[in-house]
Amino acid sequence: MNLSAEIISVGTELLLGSVANTDAQDVSKALSELGINVYHHTVVGDNPSRLEDAVNAAKSRSDIIITTGGLGPTVDDLTKFTLAKCFGKELVYSDEAAEDMRAYFAAFHPTAAITENNYRQAYLPEGATIFRNTCGTAPGCGFEAEGKRVIMLPGPPRECRAMLRVSAIPYLAALSEYKIFSHTVRVFGMGESRMDSIMQPLMDTLTNPTLAPYAIEGECYLRLTARATSEEAAEDMMRPVMEKIRVMLGDVIYGVNVASLEERVFALLRENGLTLATAESCTGGLIAKRMTDLSGVSEVFRGGVVTYQTDTKSSLLGVDPELLAREGAVHPEVARQMAEGVRIKLGADIGVGVTGVAGPAPDERNNPVGRVYVAVADGKDTYLRALSLGSERGRVRTAAANNALDMIRRLLTGLPVVRKTDALY
Amino acid sequence: MNLSAEIISVGTELLLGSVANTDAQDVSKALSELGINVYHHTVVGDNPSRLEDAVNAAKSRSDIIITTGGLGPTVDDLTKFTLAKCFGKELVYSDEAAEDMRAYFAAFHPTAAITENNYRQAYLPEGATIFRNTCGTAPGCGFEAEGKRVIMLPGPPRECRAMLRVSAIPYLAALSEYKIFSHTVRVFGMGESRMDSIMQPLMDTLTNPTLAPYAIEGECYLRLTARATSEEAAEDMMRPVMEKIRVMLGDVIYGVNVASLEERVFALLRENGLTLATAESCTGGLIAKRMTDLSGVSEVFRGGVVTYQTDTKSSLLGVDPELLAREGAVHPEVARQMAEGVRIKLGADIGVGVTGVAGPAPDERNNPVGRVYVAVADGKDTYLRALSLGSERGRVRTAAANNALDMIRRLLTGLPVVRKTDALY
Repeated sequence: MNLSAEIISVGTELLLGSVANTDAQDVSKALSELGINVYHHTVVGDNPSRLEDAVNAAKSRSDIIITTGGLGPTVDDLTKFTLAKCFGKELVYSDEAAEDMRAYFAAFHPTAAITENNYRQAYLPEGATIFRNTCGTAPGCGFEAEGKRVIMLPGPPRECRAMLRVSAIPYLAALSEYKIFSHTVRVFGMGESRMDSIMQPLMDTLTNPTLAPYAIEGECYLRLTARATSEEAAEDMMRPVMEKIRVMLGDVIYGVNVASLEERVFALLRENGLTLATAESCTGGLIAKRMTDLSGVSEVFRGGVVTYQTDTKSSLLGVDPELLAREGAVHPEVARQMAEGVRIKLGADIGVGVTGVAGPAPDERNNPVGRVYVAVADGKDTYLRALSLGSERGRVRTAAANNALDMIRRLLTGLPVVRKTDALY
Repeated sequence: MNLSAEIISVGTELLLGSVANTDAQDVSKALSELGINVYHHTVVGDNPSRLEDAVNAAKSRSDIIITTGGLGPTVDDLTKFTLAKCFGKELVYSDEAAEDMRAYFAAFHPTAAITENNYRQAYLPEGATIFRNTCGTAPGCGFEAEGKRVIMLPGPPRECRAMLRVSAIPYLAALSEYKIFSHTVRVFGMGESRMDSIMQPLMDTLTNPTLAPYAIEGECYLRLTARATSEEAAEDMMRPVMEKIRVMLGDVIYGVNVASLEERVFALLRENGLTLATAESCTGGLIAKRMTDLSGVSEVFRGGVVTYQTDTKSSLLGVDPELLAREGAVHPEVARQMAEGVRIKLGADIGVGVTGVAGPAPDERNNPVGRVYVAVADGKDTYLRALSLGSERGRVRTAAANNALDMIRRLLTGLPVVRKTDALY
């Protein structure tokens, strides 16, 4: 049977637009992976009667109701009281919840007094399974009533996410016979619309597994998803499709089940026992920042320089000052000298150099916004992409960093580093 | 009269958790600023009957209904057809909308053919005000029916945001006599709970203006909001409160109506005609990245180095190799030498040096995760914070960068750069 779920989020800060409803996103993603259909999200403020209306609407149409937010002393446990009322449940004192709270305070706020308000949080609907809050004090819970499953999660995203993984997903997984398994195929160097048009004939033939395209900032990906009773069965269903995808898209696929270009580059550097150094101008440290987002990367990442004002390109990297005086900082040869310069200066195997105009205005030599040169040097050759990356500062920087990482990825997998189809201004 | 609004977002990708509902956030924020109350967000998939139910519920309780998504050819203009149906409106062909579409294609896709599907987008509810789509093809619109105002915006966040600013906000602004004016007081160096407890007595006395506390990654802020018929009247109401806030919080306020610490640092450097250079280890380029997120920063930001592997701290910055051999890379004196080294190396007025353990594991000298030394050098003195920043990699990096920027901010405003209350491990 296909179960249906809906998510009710409680929080005035959501209605004011102070934050996006990432709790609903996190819960939805988890439910999708469990094969549970989500048909509605609702957001209401810290208001009992509107919450009650939302819960009653949900009761009339969904098997599972998941709330986020409205727990804890600052909102008087609004969600807990309202849900108990809607389902005719008493709130009963839980020694277990009180003990968890004491343990939390002892660990994180040893000098703070536990107030009566805090102890009110230990009251939960009768018969509920308590979900321990590992990042805060308000416990969540799950219960069954009137043929519905009800789950309450805290609002702060860290608390919600942790409780979802630790408690709510296992609680729900027991409800569905089928599970959802998926693979993500990451693509760089092909636009979403081109990828869609290539994949459409295959997508149209599929029902289980399914294949869906997504675009994110500057790259795109495919998600292949199978619904099956076991991982093995799912893999058997997905394998032939995955082989077709690989043939159809070829070397623009930079990884499967990889989180990012930088993660792929990190893995390739490690496999090959090579090190990297970066020289950045218009990306201003973004490549270094993305590499060092990855823990353990010190094994392969030597370091980098951000040469933001032009003269620092000579003083730090040894770029020819005459070249800079003659051609300015945004020039293919400058990118090449930055890549080779930082490689030597930091004693790395591979150097990358990026120079360009991130905007918002053209540079003093009238190079347009979005013109970027990316070079990669490996001691034998220097490869160069001359790119035209649009007009929006953030996008130019992201796309420039993506191109740099993709060039390293291609270099380390023996692919042509620069393709005819790489954007040329 | 207080107008009430609700937002209905249409998109299966929201229910799958592929993206967060940032459209609802953007629209909510805009409505709050107009003094229009938002009491509900609803999300439904690309499903006409569920959308119809959501619209009918909204009609029964809200003055203004704003939809996002479900426009355009891939979803057969689901939202437009359903809203027209719910309000008994005919769809009529708009020459103006068709002309806009032709202009868009001519400018951005000159070789693409305009399909019949595209032309279907030129059908809009009779009597509607057309909202031009400056970033895509699907037009939005606003109309009045049965005493309600209805606005339809496209789903892609860039398109939604642009149409909101350009068309929807002016359309709605005409409806409300009162407007909302607000100031944001940004705070670094005081936890949210401490700020709350200091401000609570003042907050409790206020009704208009109101004062609300918020926390974001590693910092917090207050929003002071007045509801008035003119900006002048609002400012008169807020001024005495703002003065109280300044007295109560003092120098942890780093700016009012400033977007970030880096923006404040940029402004201070420019005012003082000074330049900055960064030397980063555990933050891995994050400070340079954040500075260069700001356009025009090349005026004050010389550049930086990311010395990720230990030996690069000597080779690039001249940190004493014996010190590194004896004490390792995570040491207060290393941070000091990095700050002074990069200041001299890059010819900047101010240098900052950051070294520490971002995690996930202690370093080889058993420095715990979260131990970070941040130094700022101005050629006369070198200031140091020894910090203990928790155990989560991303937070450690953000907090270390925040501390570095805050130290520069305090240096440039003549405040003590290191306070007794700055975290010391």
